[in-house]
Amino acid sequence: MRIGVLTSGGDCPGLNAVIRSVVHRAVVDHGDEVIGFLDGWKGLLEADYRKLDLDAVGGILARGGTILGSSRVQPAHLRDGVERARGHVADLGLDAIIPIGGEGTLKAANLLSQAGLPIVGVPKTIDNDIASTDVTFGFDTAVGVATEALDRLKTTAESHQRVMVVEVMGRHTGWIALHSGMAAGAHAIVVPERPFDIEQLTEIVGERFSAGKRFAIVVVAEGAKPRPGSMDLEEGGVDMYGHERFAGIGNRLAVELEHRLGKEARPVILGHVQRGGTPTAYDRVLATRFGWHAVEAAHRGEFGMLTALRGTDIVMVPLAEATSTLKTVPADRYDEAQTVL
Amino acid sequence: MRIGVLTSGGDCPGLNAVIRSVVHRAVVDHGDEVIGFLDGWKGLLEADYRKLDLDAVGGILARGGTILGSSRVQPAHLRDGVERARGHVADLGLDAIIPIGGEGTLKAANLLSQAGLPIVGVPKTIDNDIASTDVTFGFDTAVGVATEALDRLKTTAESHQRVMVVEVMGRHTGWIALHSGMAAGAHAIVVPERPFDIEQLTEIVGERFSAGKRFAIVVVAEGAKPRPGSMDLEEGGVDMYGHERFAGIGNRLAVELEHRLGKEARPVILGHVQRGGTPTAYDRVLATRFGWHAVEAAHRGEFGMLTALRGTDIVMVPLAEATSTLKTVPADRYDEAQTVL
Amino acid sequence: MRIGVLTSGGDCPGLNAVIRSVVHRAVVDHGDEVIGFLDGWKGLLEADYRKLDLDAVGGILARGGTILGSSRVQPAHLRDGVERARGHVADLGLDAIIPIGGEGTLKAANLLSQAGLPIVGVPKTIDNDIASTDVTFGFDTAVGVATEALDRLKTTAESHQRVMVVEVMGRHTGWIALHSGMAAGAHAIVVPERPFDIEQLTEIVGERFSAGKRFAIVVVAEGAKPRPGSMDLEEGGVDMYGHERFAGIGNRLAVELEHRLGKEARPVILGHVQRGGTPTAYDRVLATRFGWHAVEAAHRGEFGMLTALRGTDIVMVPLAEATSTLKTVPADRYDEAQTVL
Amino acid sequence: MRIGVLTSGGDCPGLNAVIRSVVHRAVVDHGDEVIGFLDGWKGLLEADYRKLDLDAVGGILARGGTILGSSRVQPAHLRDGVERARGHVADLGLDAIIPIGGEGTLKAANLLSQAGLPIVGVPKTIDNDIASTDVTFGFDTAVGVATEALDRLKTTAESHQRVMVVEVMGRHTGWIALHSGMAAGAHAIVVPERPFDIEQLTEIVGERFSAGKRFAIVVVAEGAKPRPGSMDLEEGGVDMYGHERFAGIGNRLAVELEHRLGKEARPVILGHVQRGGTPTAYDRVLATRFGWHAVEAAHRGEFGMLTALRGTDIVMVPLAEATSTLKTVPADRYDEAQTVL
Repeated sequence: MRIGVLTSGGDCPGLNAVIRSVVHRAVVDHGDEVIGFLDGWKGLLEADYRKLDLDAVGGILARGGTILGSSRVQPAHLRDGVERARGHVADLGLDAIIPIGGEGTLKAANLLSQAGLPIVGVPKTIDNDIASTDVTFGFDTAVGVATEALDRLKTTAESHQRVMVVEVMGRHTGWIALHSGMAAGAHAIVVPERPFDIEQLTEIVGERFSAGKRFAIVVVAEGAKPRPGSMDLEEGGVDMYGHERFAGIGNRLAVELEHRLGKEARPVILGHVQRGGTPTAYDRVLATRFGWHAVEAAHRGEFGMLTALRGTDIVMVPLAEATSTLKTVPADRYDEAQTVL
Repeated sequence: MRIGVLTSGGDCPGLNAVIRSVVHRAVVDHGDEVIGFLDGWKGLLEADYRKLDLDAVGGILARGGTILGSSRVQPAHLRDGVERARGHVADLGLDAIIPIGGEGTLKAANLLSQAGLPIVGVPKTIDNDIASTDVTFGFDTAVGVATEALDRLKTTAESHQRVMVVEVMGRHTGWIALHSGMAAGAHAIVVPERPFDIEQLTEIVGERFSAGKRFAIVVVAEGAKPRPGSMDLEEGGVDMYGHERFAGIGNRLAVELEHRLGKEARPVILGHVQRGGTPTAYDRVLATRFGWHAVEAAHRGEFGMLTALRGTDIVMVPLAEATSTLKTVPADRYDEAQTVL
Repeated sequence: MRIGVLTSGGDCPGLNAVIRSVVHRAVVDHGDEVIGFLDGWKGLLEADYRKLDLDAVGGILARGGTILGSSRVQPAHLRDGVERARGHVADLGLDAIIPIGGEGTLKAANLLSQAGLPIVGVPKTIDNDIASTDVTFGFDTAVGVATEALDRLKTTAESHQRVMVVEVMGRHTGWIALHSGMAAGAHAIVVPERPFDIEQLTEIVGERFSAGKRFAIVVVAEGAKPRPGSMDLEEGGVDMYGHERFAGIGNRLAVELEHRLGKEARPVILGHVQRGGTPTAYDRVLATRFGWHAVEAAHRGEFGMLTALRGTDIVMVPLAEATSTLKTVPADRYDEAQTVL
Repeated sequence: MRIGVLTSGGDCPGLNAVIRSVVHRAVVDHGDEVIGFLDGWKGLLEADYRKLDLDAVGGILARGGTILGSSRVQPAHLRDGVERARGHVADLGLDAIIPIGGEGTLKAANLLSQAGLPIVGVPKTIDNDIASTDVTFGFDTAVGVATEALDRLKTTAESHQRVMVVEVMGRHTGWIALHSGMAAGAHAIVVPERPFDIEQLTEIVGERFSAGKRFAIVVVAEGAKPRPGSMDLEEGGVDMYGHERFAGIGNRLAVELEHRLGKEARPVILGHVQRGGTPTAYDRVLATRFGWHAVEAAHRGEFGMLTALRGTDIVMVPLAEATSTLKTVPADRYDEAQTVL
């Protein structure tokens, strides 16, 4: 069998572990050939690829990033390229294509699958918002990085009697905020699923100080938004020392809480650190299993499917299903995190 | 409601996170009172306890060990103490007891439950071998510590052209060996579930060297055993430099592989480092959820049950079921890890 | 002997290690009594303190922050308080005061020393800019945190063909930028000691891309400034996707480099994470030694002095000298870091 | 200029950082050519080498081990090979050889230097026992790994009321034991420089338990020895549960302390984990500076010398001096660590 693999979309710890696992399973156990398309779908559309043998994937298991490069591609652009992709697949004699990517990638994968190409998808997002799988690789690493930062910030917040507002990734869902906030014992967690009321948030944080505590940690997902009418997001602000603080929900919340509480508040924007670097053991195992099972699915001829974790099993799920809804933080999970004072 | 909590058996990262979560949920949300029995069942039998309020659990979320202390108790001793325990529970006005522990603890918990005491168990084992839950807290931390060590050992093995034999925890099951071995890309993984054939193992490792590789990593669970007749475990051995190397499967395997391969082999016994210290974010979240749901179960009057993770949900499982079988590494999971060369 | 200790100024990993060491050495070896003033100089001026015995410093060696709290005090305010401080020192029967702090704290300490109070200072700054000591504790931890972030960012920058501009601490000096940049192999390091020319910086980064590399890492100290006329710092900017990016040298540089290079550039502002949390082993040893030697100096009656590291020795240096000049990055050290392509 | 570089002796975090730095400085700044001899002196004796250009050292800064491989060579063997080495140096047109290694390597380097070969040495030992330099790279990483393990073991020791005996590296000197023991707050530190009296050690640890503490941590260097007559080291022992525990000072001490104190004692042998894997930022900076200055010395024609750290400066020291004495832990440094109860 001849297999093409590609990585598309934003960076995510564990991508290399999937690539390595595909190559190991396919080449060693099945005697397959594997090629890797460069820079995501672009590589498929332009037949830009390199051979992936055992040496090519040596030492990459624990390395962040992707040895194949990645890029974002416009869906329209890909739609126009279906015939070109089909031609390359035929020319290269490919029996299976394994795209590893997030929601956009999987939608593109579904498009190509419906056009008849032999696709087995592997879901990837540090945001953990793909509905068809219990967990995606990369998420555990992102939560780990955020939790370590929160652990560090707690002691400095306490020494200086401050509110720390820590902005973590999560444009549409609050999974990273929820898990890192629970793991670090944050005193308030603000997620996109629940538009926040700034007065209520101020009250929650304020109660801590009233109870004699010297600091508070607020974790906020980058995509969190105030309840309409609760707070004006458009403008930036000036903190209690007259310094300008600018756009971004973390910065905005820090300014707002400082004004309302009369306590120093400092924003920390974790940013790209969450999506780079060595994956945790958890993510390496999950990524390795996804790669292994994607190859198996290809050999069973199960195309148009996606690898997914259900409990402790890896199962195959239709691509079409996988991208229909976003997995958001449900009310009961959010409630579990509300106890902390 | 008045709740007693205790930790019993071996140390496990996340114990304090459960204790804290029980106190937070019970005290803050339900207005309960919580006491902690000291040093496991012993504390219950001797009515040795202290009050656990919010201050008592301040700052313990990320701390290893258990603020309540732990001990191992003989089942017979506990059986004789049932009436004493019942008396203390009545005297203290306890409505629920939440023991946090491994297989032995849960069996004891079941005994007391059948004797009519109001028990909600929380499973705990770094070995991950409790059948009724997908995962136990502490396991992820143990795997993380082992993986970090394996990552380090790889470079030193490569520089010196050695075989490294790394012994990890797992007396009856090979979960830590399997996951850390997969995460670090070990070249052979030896688990208790599959008695090994020393000749076959030598062959697998030897093939790597034949293929031009300069080193190999073997991960072995402490409880792994040779296939009967394959290797004599009783005696120690002498390595190729004439140094005595002694009992313990890691040491034995290193001696044996060195003799058979004619390559330097070095044992590393990770030991207690795997069960101490700060829990990973994963374990803190799981432990926190277990504590939260144990309190909820108590308030619903669901006694004789155990918290368990199923997929992404926390469910309640009968104590009796929970301890009937050991969760061993199944064949298909083991096969997934066999691809690595 | 009766000793008072206090921590003043910004947070710094290792403060608790100094406090613990002072208590251990003084109480255990000399039979002294130790009290800790709360929230820095404020505690001394208001006679707000608590007793520090062995139990009070149990378990704090590896903990970030300061159990005594800290605050910044206006020099004028302290000057007015000299008599009050003297009164408290007399009332409390103190034979020595050990303030742990940065430049401002040490200047205040010198003032009180010249007024006749028995002061032994301990230098503290994550910025490493105190001239009289080879290294200050906290610096190694800050460099470690920054380096770990840079390691992570490298893989994500490479996967996405980006310039990452990472802003680290260092208002007046570039030590953290220099060391973390060298440790992580940054491609350009921008420090306050050398106002940068934006065109030259663009050229250096651009050459990397011309040479076929896919990414670049720029480390910039928060206090770095453009050469007059080289770049307008007042205004914010708009990146190549039309998003506003605002003040702060990291953000500014990212916007500027993106415009000039035509490559995506992303800023990461590490912020307070660098000064919180567990100190490295290096910082704990240095902090412990400083505390030990401060007590010894007090017992020898060597007041008006500061502990300092010279090579591998701890020596005592006059407070007056210690604060007269800032230790900046010298030309030859900067040159050592310029080789990286 | 044409430079040959080689790594010899035991593995040490930072070796790759030196190699990379030599190549960067030599190739980029001086336009030199650099070759790397494989597997230490063996590569020089057998003219086994590869070209080291910028690509060859890409991505190795943070990687443990050595890309050149290493081996130990018998001094006699090298002595016989001087002419062969001289021949290869002439044939390859080498202007300088930079061997990176420990005491044995530097003695060999001195031998070759005295035979007229153009040598600039770089000292390397995780043990930190080379007298001519304040610190060697690799030491900080080893101390960091040991400290992290000790941090983890503390909580598990406390939960189980145990003595933990942790054996760290240090065959002839106790630097790793001293620094990791101070950093982690060990309750006793046993080093080769001070043969221990088992009764005195038992007393020190016992006092902790008498004072109501629940656990103790003992750090012991692998080369530590009992005072003659104090304890019989030859035989192994049987612990209080009848399990055999065998040779190695860590195991022996655990058995002995358990018997004498009547408390559970557990040995942990950290082993090779201390010398593998990613170097700390500190070690990367030091290693990078050593490489840079070695190239500079070569260009200045300063042969027969060794790079060394003195305070914050890198200086050149005669090879002959460097290996004449071992840097042992002096009495006053040891005393600083004796305060802990």
